[in-house]
Amino acid sequence: MINYQQILDEIFQELQPTLTNGKVADYIPALAKVLPDQFAMSITLMDGTSHHIGCSDTKFSIQSISKVFTFTKALNIYSKELYRKVGREPSGNPFNSLVQLEYEHGIPRNPFINAGAIVVTDTLLSHYKNVDNTYDKILGFIQEISDNQDITYDRDVWFSEYKHGHRNIALANLMKSFNNLDNNVDDVVKTYFKHCAITMSTKELSRAMLFLANHGTDPITNKEFITSSQAKRINAVMLTCGHYDASGDFAFHVGLPGKSGVGGGIVAIVPKLMSIAVFSPRLNNWGNSYSGTKALEIFTNKTSLSIF
Amino acid sequence: MINYQQILDEIFQELQPTLTNGKVADYIPALAKVLPDQFAMSITLMDGTSHHIGCSDTKFSIQSISKVFTFTKALNIYSKELYRKVGREPSGNPFNSLVQLEYEHGIPRNPFINAGAIVVTDTLLSHYKNVDNTYDKILGFIQEISDNQDITYDRDVWFSEYKHGHRNIALANLMKSFNNLDNNVDDVVKTYFKHCAITMSTKELSRAMLFLANHGTDPITNKEFITSSQAKRINAVMLTCGHYDASGDFAFHVGLPGKSGVGGGIVAIVPKLMSIAVFSPRLNNWGNSYSGTKALEIFTNKTSLSIF
Amino acid sequence: MINYQQILDEIFQELQPTLTNGKVADYIPALAKVLPDQFAMSITLMDGTSHHIGCSDTKFSIQSISKVFTFTKALNIYSKELYRKVGREPSGNPFNSLVQLEYEHGIPRNPFINAGAIVVTDTLLSHYKNVDNTYDKILGFIQEISDNQDITYDRDVWFSEYKHGHRNIALANLMKSFNNLDNNVDDVVKTYFKHCAITMSTKELSRAMLFLANHGTDPITNKEFITSSQAKRINAVMLTCGHYDASGDFAFHVGLPGKSGVGGGIVAIVPKLMSIAVFSPRLNNWGNSYSGTKALEIFTNKTSLSIF
Amino acid sequence: MINYQQILDEIFQELQPTLTNGKVADYIPALAKVLPDQFAMSITLMDGTSHHIGCSDTKFSIQSISKVFTFTKALNIYSKELYRKVGREPSGNPFNSLVQLEYEHGIPRNPFINAGAIVVTDTLLSHYKNVDNTYDKILGFIQEISDNQDITYDRDVWFSEYKHGHRNIALANLMKSFNNLDNNVDDVVKTYFKHCAITMSTKELSRAMLFLANHGTDPITNKEFITSSQAKRINAVMLTCGHYDASGDFAFHVGLPGKSGVGGGIVAIVPKLMSIAVFSPRLNNWGNSYSGTKALEIFTNKTSLSIF
Repeated sequence: MINYQQILDEIFQELQPTLTNGKVADYIPALAKVLPDQFAMSITLMDGTSHHIGCSDTKFSIQSISKVFTFTKALNIYSKELYRKVGREPSGNPFNSLVQLEYEHGIPRNPFINAGAIVVTDTLLSHYKNVDNTYDKILGFIQEISDNQDITYDRDVWFSEYKHGHRNIALANLMKSFNNLDNNVDDVVKTYFKHCAITMSTKELSRAMLFLANHGTDPITNKEFITSSQAKRINAVMLTCGHYDASGDFAFHVGLPGKSGVGGGIVAIVPKLMSIAVFSPRLNNWGNSYSGTKALEIFTNKTSLSIF
Repeated sequence: MINYQQILDEIFQELQPTLTNGKVADYIPALAKVLPDQFAMSITLMDGTSHHIGCSDTKFSIQSISKVFTFTKALNIYSKELYRKVGREPSGNPFNSLVQLEYEHGIPRNPFINAGAIVVTDTLLSHYKNVDNTYDKILGFIQEISDNQDITYDRDVWFSEYKHGHRNIALANLMKSFNNLDNNVDDVVKTYFKHCAITMSTKELSRAMLFLANHGTDPITNKEFITSSQAKRINAVMLTCGHYDASGDFAFHVGLPGKSGVGGGIVAIVPKLMSIAVFSPRLNNWGNSYSGTKALEIFTNKTSLSIF
Repeated sequence: MINYQQILDEIFQELQPTLTNGKVADYIPALAKVLPDQFAMSITLMDGTSHHIGCSDTKFSIQSISKVFTFTKALNIYSKELYRKVGREPSGNPFNSLVQLEYEHGIPRNPFINAGAIVVTDTLLSHYKNVDNTYDKILGFIQEISDNQDITYDRDVWFSEYKHGHRNIALANLMKSFNNLDNNVDDVVKTYFKHCAITMSTKELSRAMLFLANHGTDPITNKEFITSSQAKRINAVMLTCGHYDASGDFAFHVGLPGKSGVGGGIVAIVPKLMSIAVFSPRLNNWGNSYSGTKALEIFTNKTSLSIF
Repeated sequence: MINYQQILDEIFQELQPTLTNGKVADYIPALAKVLPDQFAMSITLMDGTSHHIGCSDTKFSIQSISKVFTFTKALNIYSKELYRKVGREPSGNPFNSLVQLEYEHGIPRNPFINAGAIVVTDTLLSHYKNVDNTYDKILGFIQEISDNQDITYDRDVWFSEYKHGHRNIALANLMKSFNNLDNNVDDVVKTYFKHCAITMSTKELSRAMLFLANHGTDPITNKEFITSSQAKRINAVMLTCGHYDASGDFAFHVGLPGKSGVGGGIVAIVPKLMSIAVFSPRLNNWGNSYSGTKALEIFTNKTSLSIF
């Protein structure tokens, strides 16, 4: 029987000397003002037991982790039809590249690069009709899988992203020019930036992801959010595409399906066992949490819980 | 002594069988409704003598030909400083590609691809402060070099371009993300689409370009619009970059500096001798007027007026 | 307890109607002459028990599956040093693309695209000195992990690949120009083509891969071929990069680490449980066995043995 | 009447302070050992009168300037058919890039990038059967247009290029894989490297190019080497593609058709007036002679002889 709390304590210990490595995202002022040397890690087991270390109640900007929620929701609504608008292949390119998108006629490689997530948001907007309602439905879904009503977004981050989001707006317009967006570009990016600006703690995130560890059904509430087959496929896409152009490296070093956000969070899934969330805002060269990635690598080394 | 009128007559004759080759630009409805089989050609000599064939009084959308006017105006204002924001190399890519722009950090290759012309418009907007005034100054400049107040823009084309201009808006946002646009993206593209929607006849266009044949000074009014050195360089950029990814082919077949527009117009310069304008709305595979290109090729073959 | 033989029988049954889908590799005559509608599937469990269906004793050209063997051998020799010469990221490009290799200065993305495997072969050549000895050592290694001396290569295929291998020779020369090959280009590609031309049956292949299902140690002979950590990482690289530009799709549909070859073979690993080999020479659009991929998808659906 | 000798003297004077700018090509030892601060310039007028400054009798490696001779010869043999194998568009890429070549299925953009010149050499090899005879015919052609038997190649440079020419060999193999080379790759590159290793002085080069200033016919010997139309087109291709990815810049600053070589030479044509050759081995960032380019820019500024 693994003593998870002890492992979290050890990880926290081992990471102390390098918590100042990496660089906080500073492309928008609202993200740059976060305390840089924070660290938190939470795991939630199938029976709801959870273990935490560090500032696990501190809310941070989940950013691209929200793409897992919107992808899940869109898969739930559209099923296979969704793949006519977005692929599931690693991109071999940075998260916000326009090059591949142009060569591939506006069909993004996967739902976890920015272009793909924008398309996914567009499909939700088509279903839920307007920006406010779509955001409400996305938030409602996150609250439901988290079993927690106390989740919202950071208005400053949202506004700051929207104001400085020229590259994402470029991606959206490029896809619109290829007829791969159905709604007004401005509505789509507004909704996209809004769900990226949702804030959660590692405690909340590890709880929220539990349904993916349990093949689509929350093991505590027994609610089925998505089919078993779809859940496995979300995990597969997280493994091959969840860390942009460092996805191979993450699979190599950590060996778990996961998704990172530029706010410093990472979620990871140990199928049939647990979901994990880490937070540390300093990023490595690929835009993923430096200490968060390290923490997960130490975790799978100590526990041998890699899927490989 | 060359009989230019006779040569124009012969060209018109020779082109009759192929006037139905090529395809009218149809990416916006307002352009698609032009009569497809029209042809006009005008030449204006240094003494103001002019020769015409076909519908040389018919106004058409000058589109990218307007880039020559805005480039001239911006060079006049900023001189060499302009080249910090836009290069002068052939692109080796289609006119609206985002690929190269991303690799080259938002600095467009030259002022005649869309991205480059958008940057040029941005610099004019910085100088003239707002959309309306900037457009008025561009139009005023065209009226002055044309010695003709009767020039304006087509509101339908402008609105249609603006409404469907997602790819150009993507280019502008991408450059904005690289800090290579100083003004609001929406203002820049509005101004850009507006000067592209100006309509002129071949008679007017061949008159307007005369200053470039005479190294910057209108030979009729003696007004100097740009220095001799700058005028030669505008001609050089037209030769190497004036026809998008068919610039080499145009230099090869026609051998004159020129600039085409998707509305079916082409202007060309015979240094120290004349300026030429042709119009025929059906386009070849590279987006240049099919019969217009042919007409110019026949012209330089018959007259041996290639610069090579 | 799963009845694997019955599952293989069912798969064979289900695939009958589509065994004529896809197209045999025909870029060299020696490969094109294979009987197109063959199918075989073999699984080998940790205790050595094995199950087979179809022509599981028929030898076929293992082609890129050999890259798993050379990568394993090179990792065993050079350990982490190997990653200075080859990465472990999905490429987002076809298997033989030169584009990314040029942008990334001759360092291939991963050991399973052709460029990466050529680099791996180069490192083995540096270690084993000459073409014949290097090939002998690679073959010896395969014979050892297969517990089977009766394996060799197809001289016709080898010669045919070498004679028509201009693109691979281009890749090798490009890497040589970046100083990422240490040996003579001709020696490297000769060795590379030779190990690609090795022939094995699914029975042999599923046996050979068992050490990867058991974290580096053959569970029958108890020989440790590679460390546990390295074995997991080979599996991770197979999952993210094992099927060229359809790796995401394979992870998505099959959910197992695997490696395909253009000869129609695919190997896959169920960690701690078994290794699988399939063979069917008709290929899908991405160059992977059409029926082989299908067979594995059906297998993980029926058994729920996906790693996700 | 322009005093050309005085202008050459002035240019030489003006360049003295910057003759140490730029960097000698050092990718092969045989080129790196040239005396770095040399300068020579020669012009040959239509009547055979010539003017020289600097070390105009010093022979240097003509390198890519030889591409003008092979292109001329191939055009003479194959006429328009040649353009099925090589284009005439600027590349927008460095001289030895494989990227575009792969996207464009092995058809090089123009005969002056390395890939294009290799294809041209391949066509000559098809016509003249073997390496030695093909080289002899190319050399014979150069001797004929130069009216000078005393021209040969540098064996050390040839051998050094061949030994270190991995990137060019990669280009050749890539084109072979697209069936755009008809001969054995090794024969093609051997011939290519051999004609690149020919050495000439500026005196000889300016004499050799005179036929291009006179529309294909040597004005001294009255021999027609190529048709008037073809000669103009060679000039057009030199203008748009003669300086790799600085062709636009050369047209902009110098305004003459020209071709540079990595050995430090540049030739330029003033149609109907003269041919010019400069030599100075230090190169600018685009691989063109630093002082050679400057000299030509000063020349056209002083004489107003730009074609624009």
